[in-house]
Amino acid sequence: MSKEMIVTPWEVTGNIDYDRLIKEFGVEKINDKTLERIKKHTKELHFMLRRKVFFAGRDLNFILDEYEKGNKFFLYTGRAPSGPIHLGHLMPWIFTKWLQDKFDIELWFQFPDEEKFLFKQDLAWEQGQKFMYENMLDIIALGFDPKKTHFIVDSIHAGLMYKEACKVAKKITFNMVKSSFGIDDSANIGSIFYTSMQAVPAFLPSIIKKKNLPCLIPHAIDQDPHFRLTRDILPKLGYYKPASIQCIFLPPLSGVEGKMSSSKEYSIYTTDSPKEVEKKINKYAFSGGQPTIEEHKKIGGNPDIDVPFQYLRMLLEDDDKKLEQIYKDYKSGKILTGELKKIVIEKINDFLKEHQKKREEAKKHVESFIYQKNNPPTPKGMSL
Amino acid sequence: MSKEMIVTPWEVTGNIDYDRLIKEFGVEKINDKTLERIKKHTKELHFMLRRKVFFAGRDLNFILDEYEKGNKFFLYTGRAPSGPIHLGHLMPWIFTKWLQDKFDIELWFQFPDEEKFLFKQDLAWEQGQKFMYENMLDIIALGFDPKKTHFIVDSIHAGLMYKEACKVAKKITFNMVKSSFGIDDSANIGSIFYTSMQAVPAFLPSIIKKKNLPCLIPHAIDQDPHFRLTRDILPKLGYYKPASIQCIFLPPLSGVEGKMSSSKEYSIYTTDSPKEVEKKINKYAFSGGQPTIEEHKKIGGNPDIDVPFQYLRMLLEDDDKKLEQIYKDYKSGKILTGELKKIVIEKINDFLKEHQKKREEAKKHVESFIYQKNNPPTPKGMSL
Repeated sequence: MSKEMIVTPWEVTGNIDYDRLIKEFGVEKINDKTLERIKKHTKELHFMLRRKVFFAGRDLNFILDEYEKGNKFFLYTGRAPSGPIHLGHLMPWIFTKWLQDKFDIELWFQFPDEEKFLFKQDLAWEQGQKFMYENMLDIIALGFDPKKTHFIVDSIHAGLMYKEACKVAKKITFNMVKSSFGIDDSANIGSIFYTSMQAVPAFLPSIIKKKNLPCLIPHAIDQDPHFRLTRDILPKLGYYKPASIQCIFLPPLSGVEGKMSSSKEYSIYTTDSPKEVEKKINKYAFSGGQPTIEEHKKIGGNPDIDVPFQYLRMLLEDDDKKLEQIYKDYKSGKILTGELKKIVIEKINDFLKEHQKKREEAKKHVESFIYQKNNPPTPKGMSL
Repeated sequence: MSKEMIVTPWEVTGNIDYDRLIKEFGVEKINDKTLERIKKHTKELHFMLRRKVFFAGRDLNFILDEYEKGNKFFLYTGRAPSGPIHLGHLMPWIFTKWLQDKFDIELWFQFPDEEKFLFKQDLAWEQGQKFMYENMLDIIALGFDPKKTHFIVDSIHAGLMYKEACKVAKKITFNMVKSSFGIDDSANIGSIFYTSMQAVPAFLPSIIKKKNLPCLIPHAIDQDPHFRLTRDILPKLGYYKPASIQCIFLPPLSGVEGKMSSSKEYSIYTTDSPKEVEKKINKYAFSGGQPTIEEHKKIGGNPDIDVPFQYLRMLLEDDDKKLEQIYKDYKSGKILTGELKKIVIEKINDFLKEHQKKREEAKKHVESFIYQKNNPPTPKGMSL
């Protein structure tokens, strides 16, 4: 029943073989030594690191070397607005906030509001702008430090970004884009150019601060092709290669294949009501349990393919002991599918209750997150 | 000896067959009826119209229809900085100023400072910026009305332009760019995207003024492929197709083939000294005269292939009677090659003396020509 694995910045389907991705993309698995190095600075390890939700990266030791020399890195991540935010989106951002807090560093958060507009035939510009505003509320609600977090919006900050994107673009041929993203001659020319804009936040802070700064990009592994290209180009422009730390995908309700995406039924949105969450988990969440209570009690469930359990593991339960207990009890049949679902529903609804409150408050703070200097520096000799 | 005719936005060589271009590009020759319509509003016809230097166009009658209904058009032209300004550049701008004065209309003058940077491997960004500043001085020196003239610089005004360029880009495939410009998969992705930025000034004033305005683009015919594409796309975005009025090329000193381009010896720059002008015309300007004075007096010269004469006709002598007299006298052998060259040298040096003075003064006025609102309007719902 498994569909063929496809992992591109625009499509993730099938049974994801992460070891194969590590090999194909050429990223490094995060080893215990690196985890120890991180722990030296953060005191504790985030559960997403302990559980290998963030499992791979590029140049993490370089980032730590520089940090230890007193050369702080900044974080760069982003969101291409094309719909509402679901739990799968939040996962890497929750981890990003942890990194910001523990390392006390700046975060540059890109909203490439042209990306999905260019790649989705049906997405109107105005619709994308509405999504962007809504998405910003979710990101602010996660508690990023407004003094250290800068939203960069491609359409708003193009005055800063476009000329830098051109410098990147001059070094990328259509052939390279073709082989990196698998697009062809029928692609529109905006979508072909786009990857240059995605490269810019990896060095824009170095321009703004007039100092070459290391950059760490936390992201889901499907975005790697963009940053692979960015890593090739940036040293040619005199900047560091951006490092990355990459996570696996939060699965959709329908099962542990693919990733949670914007399909209404199989995703849990940040604005869902407690009733909706309850209904979605009960109705759609793929279970590793047995068909009948009797069988379940006898044989036990399989937490490894159980979507509600995976949500606990990857996103909701930070207590390893509690998680292990649930794992064992579900596997032994002590916890029934309905009971496990109830635990997850409560966890999600507790989280969302708080999130939705903060999301409402965020409406007052959007402005303070948007980077305010969107005029480019005056060209030399021009008395502007 | 004629090289094959090549006319693209990046290359013009060979013996230009303008009738063939009209057919291949699908533009319309400007006929007497259209000239009469123009004259109704301008009282007189510019010598570049009388002499068919501006010889073709698209939708000129639409522009006049709208003008007569009270719907004024605006002018859009531009300069991609990549070197100093020569007389060949000035030709269409001198005519553009005349249009601005006679029709009392706005001019949006684009400086696509990324274009040549993207298309020329060796052009560094900073070098392009220096050229741009110098180029602006030449344009201001021509006397455009600062109240009605707005310089739009792609890198500075990208905050206004980039999102509009994306709307254009979404409707242009790489296939279309390939067939319009003859570039291939080895082209960099900035150069592929670029044509979308060139389209923007054709409708940006409509956005700024919140009114759909007709646009007239005066330009040399080699730029037609850009605007052909623009004309296909703009109605799909709800704007008028931009109209155009197109000129032939001012020939290089070396002969009436090709166009004056940035080859040091064969072009006359706006900053050339009287001595340099004298030397260039005397040494390099291709002459239609005979090898010896005796032969010349007997057979006469050929003004149609004589570069100095063509400069008089296309750029320097607005008096038809004087021009005709020179034509006849040169053809009959009454005027010698050296004498004709002397007339042209004086004309150019008179012009440049004045131009260089105004060019110096222009340094004080650059700021007032650059469009000052380079922040995009706030996205709806966002309290920026």
